[in-house]
Amino acid sequence: MRTRVTDMLGIELPIFAFSHCRDVVVEVSRAGGMGVLGALYFTPEELEMELKWIDDHVDGKPYGVDVVMPASYAGADLGVDSPEDLLGRLQGMIPEGHRAFVDNLLTSHGVGPLSGEEASRALLGWTDATARPQVEVALRHPIALLANALGPPPADVVELAHAKGVKVAALASTPRHAVKQVEVGVDIVVAQGTEAGGHTGEISTMVLIPQVVDAVDVPVLAAGGIGNGRQMAAGMALGAEGVWTGSIWLAVEEADTPAMAKQRILEATSRDTVRSRSWTGKPARLLRNEWTDAWEAPDSPGTLPMPLQFMLISDALRRIARSDAAELATFPAGQIIGTMNQVRSTKDVVFGLVEEYIEATERLGRLTGD
Amino acid sequence: MRTRVTDMLGIELPIFAFSHCRDVVVEVSRAGGMGVLGALYFTPEELEMELKWIDDHVDGKPYGVDVVMPASYAGADLGVDSPEDLLGRLQGMIPEGHRAFVDNLLTSHGVGPLSGEEASRALLGWTDATARPQVEVALRHPIALLANALGPPPADVVELAHAKGVKVAALASTPRHAVKQVEVGVDIVVAQGTEAGGHTGEISTMVLIPQVVDAVDVPVLAAGGIGNGRQMAAGMALGAEGVWTGSIWLAVEEADTPAMAKQRILEATSRDTVRSRSWTGKPARLLRNEWTDAWEAPDSPGTLPMPLQFMLISDALRRIARSDAAELATFPAGQIIGTMNQVRSTKDVVFGLVEEYIEATERLGRLTGD
Repeated sequence: MRTRVTDMLGIELPIFAFSHCRDVVVEVSRAGGMGVLGALYFTPEELEMELKWIDDHVDGKPYGVDVVMPASYAGADLGVDSPEDLLGRLQGMIPEGHRAFVDNLLTSHGVGPLSGEEASRALLGWTDATARPQVEVALRHPIALLANALGPPPADVVELAHAKGVKVAALASTPRHAVKQVEVGVDIVVAQGTEAGGHTGEISTMVLIPQVVDAVDVPVLAAGGIGNGRQMAAGMALGAEGVWTGSIWLAVEEADTPAMAKQRILEATSRDTVRSRSWTGKPARLLRNEWTDAWEAPDSPGTLPMPLQFMLISDALRRIARSDAAELATFPAGQIIGTMNQVRSTKDVVFGLVEEYIEATERLGRLTGD
Repeated sequence: MRTRVTDMLGIELPIFAFSHCRDVVVEVSRAGGMGVLGALYFTPEELEMELKWIDDHVDGKPYGVDVVMPASYAGADLGVDSPEDLLGRLQGMIPEGHRAFVDNLLTSHGVGPLSGEEASRALLGWTDATARPQVEVALRHPIALLANALGPPPADVVELAHAKGVKVAALASTPRHAVKQVEVGVDIVVAQGTEAGGHTGEISTMVLIPQVVDAVDVPVLAAGGIGNGRQMAAGMALGAEGVWTGSIWLAVEEADTPAMAKQRILEATSRDTVRSRSWTGKPARLLRNEWTDAWEAPDSPGTLPMPLQFMLISDALRRIARSDAAELATFPAGQIIGTMNQVRSTKDVVFGLVEEYIEATERLGRLTGD
């Protein structure tokens, strides 16, 4: 299968797999697609180890790294470059009432009060200051693609990547975003519909992709709602030159998704997700449950702007993960989780996508063939 | 182009056009597709006249009628069969506070107070009692298709249609709805994604269509976000055997859409719609403006259940339409309105869909061809 994207990156299949799990990244790249490691939750030191492991296992196949450099966030104007100093300044901006709300919510579900001792890792990756060290680590490895998850990356980061021969992708949820990204030098636009997991806009994939394809000259990947080969064919019919997938890798054999979360994904329907600011302060599609509902309830203090919201809740999320309170365990998930009912190997999912894609396009051809 | 749907209905193109405008219905059917007249706003007598006009102008081509028989609504359990009696009983269920809210909203935009003299036509079509006379009128004409817009039609209505050789379609926004519809004898399921205009669910077209196709044996039409030939090809790639379109006919030359509304549609982006209960009491995607915002504001009394909400607002909607208060003129519209930037003839839109559909499928074929 050849598109401008496969030519640009030297891959066989225009299938991009976003995952926080290095095993998934390696398996997808080895199968001919492009695994993209989400760097967000890693310290620079941890990211270095993850990428080293990938280099050792990926058989020289191209892979990518995804960072989060949001175009706007609380504290962006403080002029603080050191992640530690920024963390301190931002901690002071979280209202006590919000801390109490989270505390009460957990207590009422038997998770117990927050200790507040442990230094939060919440800030990591949600600001320019914390993402740049990740970019530096990533560019020391033979990556083929650097992706930015929240809007256009800073122009100097694009230049840095290009100087190393690394292509740059960025996620867009409107045609206007896409145009801005191309203006700063992005090579590939990932047009992501509202049905996608994680940070997402309002426009559906079906409506968004043709608009973005018509708005920019660079190749476009279709993201949001791509979980099987019919959906891949639909994305390509809309004008995309590849697909960007995320949620479908949460439940593969190789994924290190917590067992509780994996079980919820296998059971969920496509109506069990919700666009909520309760994770990071920006709208993101999450598994809907008592956590997301609590933030919409009449007694909710409302969410805080990025990166304060995630700083506020990160201890809570870790405590919930360790508890039995499955009803509070929320996480980014797209509507496609409604069709994920069994655990399969990463390779099976990749080859299944391709096989069904071919079936779907052949069927389309037959419809007009007579 | 042949699918089970074109064979079933004797049409050349699996393109279904929902419109309240008889001219659009006739033009689409004459172009080889299937025009479907929305009966909702017509009295039985008016509907009789519209269908007579269509019969006189459609050159014997197949066309359809769309009615609204919601599975659930306030007053459904009152046991009142007469539309007039039901109207009286329901009027008494509208709180004075709600009437005052609407009154104040209009006054604050210079539209002036409601007179309250004129008997409301609001109830028409939103209940079983009011839709049945429409069905009776429709079945006296040589229609090919009877569609129900809100869930499964009553089983006896399906039987009545089948006895006349009329096929029955119904709109579904979840796979579970689709299965229920097939159980009552529906011949075609219209799977409608959240991006669609009018009453709509939460699941996007991209995610919904394959789920519905896998859940039922009858042919499925893709609805929601279908405005160009690439989107039509995407819908067919997802497994649909035709497409159901609505919003794209609001701005064609033949449409009797009020000039103010047409202008708003041509200017709108895909972010200018919102899912709101402020029209009928059930969630429907509308043009977002000060009307829809007002119902979400802190001083909103909240919306009423169907059919009370539309009874409450119908006088207001007519007054707004006659006023200069464009900022209050809301109406059902899908996200696809963001790509509608010029007025074209109905025939041009139909042929444009087909042409671009063929281009898109040929391009798909070439991707795997080498």
